[in-house]
Amino acid sequence: MRMYDIIVKKREGNILNEEEIRFFINGYTNGEIPDYQASALAMAIYFQGMNGKETAALTQAMVDSGEKIDLSDIEGHIVDKHSTGGVGDKVTFIIGPLVASLGIPVAKMSGRGLGHTGGTIDKLEAIEGFTTEITKEEFVRNVNTHKLAVAGQTGNLAPADKKLYALRDVTGTVNALSLIASSIMSKKLASGADSIVLDVKTGSGAFMKTLEDSEALAREMVTIGNELGKNTVAVISDMNQPLGFEVGNANEIKEAAEILKGSDVKDLRELSLEIASQMSVLAGAFDKPEAAREALEENISNGKAHAKLKEFIEAQHGAGEMIDDLSKLPQAEYHVEVPAETGGYVNEIDAESIGVAAMYLGAGRQTKDDKIDHSVGITLKKKIGDKVEEGEPLVVLHSNMKEPEDSVEKVKKAYTITSDKKEAPTLLHNIIK
Amino acid sequence: MRMYDIIVKKREGNILNEEEIRFFINGYTNGEIPDYQASALAMAIYFQGMNGKETAALTQAMVDSGEKIDLSDIEGHIVDKHSTGGVGDKVTFIIGPLVASLGIPVAKMSGRGLGHTGGTIDKLEAIEGFTTEITKEEFVRNVNTHKLAVAGQTGNLAPADKKLYALRDVTGTVNALSLIASSIMSKKLASGADSIVLDVKTGSGAFMKTLEDSEALAREMVTIGNELGKNTVAVISDMNQPLGFEVGNANEIKEAAEILKGSDVKDLRELSLEIASQMSVLAGAFDKPEAAREALEENISNGKAHAKLKEFIEAQHGAGEMIDDLSKLPQAEYHVEVPAETGGYVNEIDAESIGVAAMYLGAGRQTKDDKIDHSVGITLKKKIGDKVEEGEPLVVLHSNMKEPEDSVEKVKKAYTITSDKKEAPTLLHNIIK
Repeated sequence: MRMYDIIVKKREGNILNEEEIRFFINGYTNGEIPDYQASALAMAIYFQGMNGKETAALTQAMVDSGEKIDLSDIEGHIVDKHSTGGVGDKVTFIIGPLVASLGIPVAKMSGRGLGHTGGTIDKLEAIEGFTTEITKEEFVRNVNTHKLAVAGQTGNLAPADKKLYALRDVTGTVNALSLIASSIMSKKLASGADSIVLDVKTGSGAFMKTLEDSEALAREMVTIGNELGKNTVAVISDMNQPLGFEVGNANEIKEAAEILKGSDVKDLRELSLEIASQMSVLAGAFDKPEAAREALEENISNGKAHAKLKEFIEAQHGAGEMIDDLSKLPQAEYHVEVPAETGGYVNEIDAESIGVAAMYLGAGRQTKDDKIDHSVGITLKKKIGDKVEEGEPLVVLHSNMKEPEDSVEKVKKAYTITSDKKEAPTLLHNIIK
Repeated sequence: MRMYDIIVKKREGNILNEEEIRFFINGYTNGEIPDYQASALAMAIYFQGMNGKETAALTQAMVDSGEKIDLSDIEGHIVDKHSTGGVGDKVTFIIGPLVASLGIPVAKMSGRGLGHTGGTIDKLEAIEGFTTEITKEEFVRNVNTHKLAVAGQTGNLAPADKKLYALRDVTGTVNALSLIASSIMSKKLASGADSIVLDVKTGSGAFMKTLEDSEALAREMVTIGNELGKNTVAVISDMNQPLGFEVGNANEIKEAAEILKGSDVKDLRELSLEIASQMSVLAGAFDKPEAAREALEENISNGKAHAKLKEFIEAQHGAGEMIDDLSKLPQAEYHVEVPAETGGYVNEIDAESIGVAAMYLGAGRQTKDDKIDHSVGITLKKKIGDKVEEGEPLVVLHSNMKEPEDSVEKVKKAYTITSDKKEAPTLLHNIIK
């Protein structure tokens, strides 16, 4: 078998078989196939696409290229959740305790990573003492005892994906749907969950800007999951503006805790309940999402979900009292309002600019070595469709700089105010199974 | 400027400007742009194509990447000729003396290269003493005196093309029309001629199998030449069977010399006269090909063309008596007939298989270090449309092995005999200016 023939076969629009895909991935991972052939194939795939079977085979080959997390010591059906990423997305901190409060195991591997705000682990570390540096045994024991644990991603998961992604990143081949889908799914599948709920974002602040593209990506990923024997459901949710009102680390934990206490931040609560319902159904705890939702709402009302958050935090050595009294979470020194320059209605909020503004404050990392300031962040005061008077604050910047000018500028540009009222965007676009 | 953006721009089907193309070629030649980005761009070009201006800019950038032969010391308008390659193609040895016999300078840079038979230089070396290892001064003096000289390709012509071609060869991106065209034209343009006649082959034995593809390639190359200020004409000629009757080194020289003496090997004489006419018109010696042709035919009849061949050979230290008496050319020991296994009409002759059969005899090189046997080769006895009796010879193998079984087998498979008569294929398909 020759890589050359595989490139030409795909270039001509033919379907690659499992053997050919495995030959490519194994050869590329061990360095026998050079970057220049891999990038030519990636570009051919960009133009010719891959069908469900090819994409599944690619994903499996990437999973098999490295370690696989063995969660078989965990009792029950483990459901994982993955978001394609957006600004203000703190859904993980809500659905974890929520689903766990129903007795369904949630065993989460998370990362730090670069970004406007920290990754899941960074955000959790806003809570004093909280650590994800726990042994495999402690992780399994915590899930079995508390039904919820979060560990840092260790091990060499899907190294083929890592290498291929780095190559695609510099050769203009990131945007091939089947390659995006297999990249995400290979890491999820290597993490050992039994079922997966995908939160695929759509809109100006998402990787996929149009509903059509988001649905296509969701379908690819659901196909891969199902082809490889994992029940997979995708929720297509809106990212035309940040999710909820809080962007940062401590303040995202705060908003999540408030939702678990019953606060009604509409989009955030709604999306969290939807994802948690889908997870509960995949776990086999309920036949229908509606029934799951009723039980989940009940566990918010009766305080079980919020108690589960505290229990989970304490099990990983975090200061539970910060959950009881959210004012104990890290606080920035200054709270700078950014006023509207004209009156009208909020027409657009560029989520990415809000994210960048938060990063300027210190909430995220630009390079791997940057330190995160857990106390800083942004509270949105106005969202799309809201009426705003001239001079009224659009956001409050929680800052440790007295005059965070770059962030102020970024926020001003992020907001578009018009005289016509625009409806708030639809939150839940579609569920793809 | 970033290579990444250039890849994405082409991937999206946009037109690259001259600056971007030059950035790519310069960066790739000096090693700043890695192979994996160049191969991704080549694949994007495969799918999205390039327009005439882009292809011309690419060609010019490749020309500028290395040395350019300066032929300004040669008097008159220099016309070059290039063939896309085929089996039995000895047209160069005919048109050189023919055009030169009209006083038009033909200054040819040639190579050896791999192939079924030798390159232009190898074939000429079948003549005892003939050498292309002449100084630049001798070359220029010879052209000015004799109007014809052939030199080995020295110097670092279009190194960008060399590097890019090697990459395309292993990444499935050879078959991009604009890349093929710019590759051929960059080497021609670096060689310093004022005008170029291209012999673009079409058919089963050619790189381009269909007339449509051959015409498209011809058009690309003519556009490049004209965009870059060189008058360029392409002749589309048939390669559904070997050209003429002789395949090898000494025997191709022999057949060429016979044409110059007036022999009427139809396809070979016809194509040579057509190309020589086009060259003579481009050189400004005639207004119309018809007038040039008359003069060229006259110089065959009156012996001037044949005398020019001898003059040229002797000027480069070759044994002129071999041209006077062709039986003095190197002769193989054995002459092995390959008989037809059934009677009927010749329907197909796979030119490439005939070429491989000649290579098996020793007429060509499989690896760079192989030595060529100038004496061996193949004489075709039957061509497409010919009637053949069972047992009648299809070809004669001139061999220094008594039983050249591999070649016999290859020839047998090359011929298809049917009971229906097929017309000989059209020789000249089209002229593209």
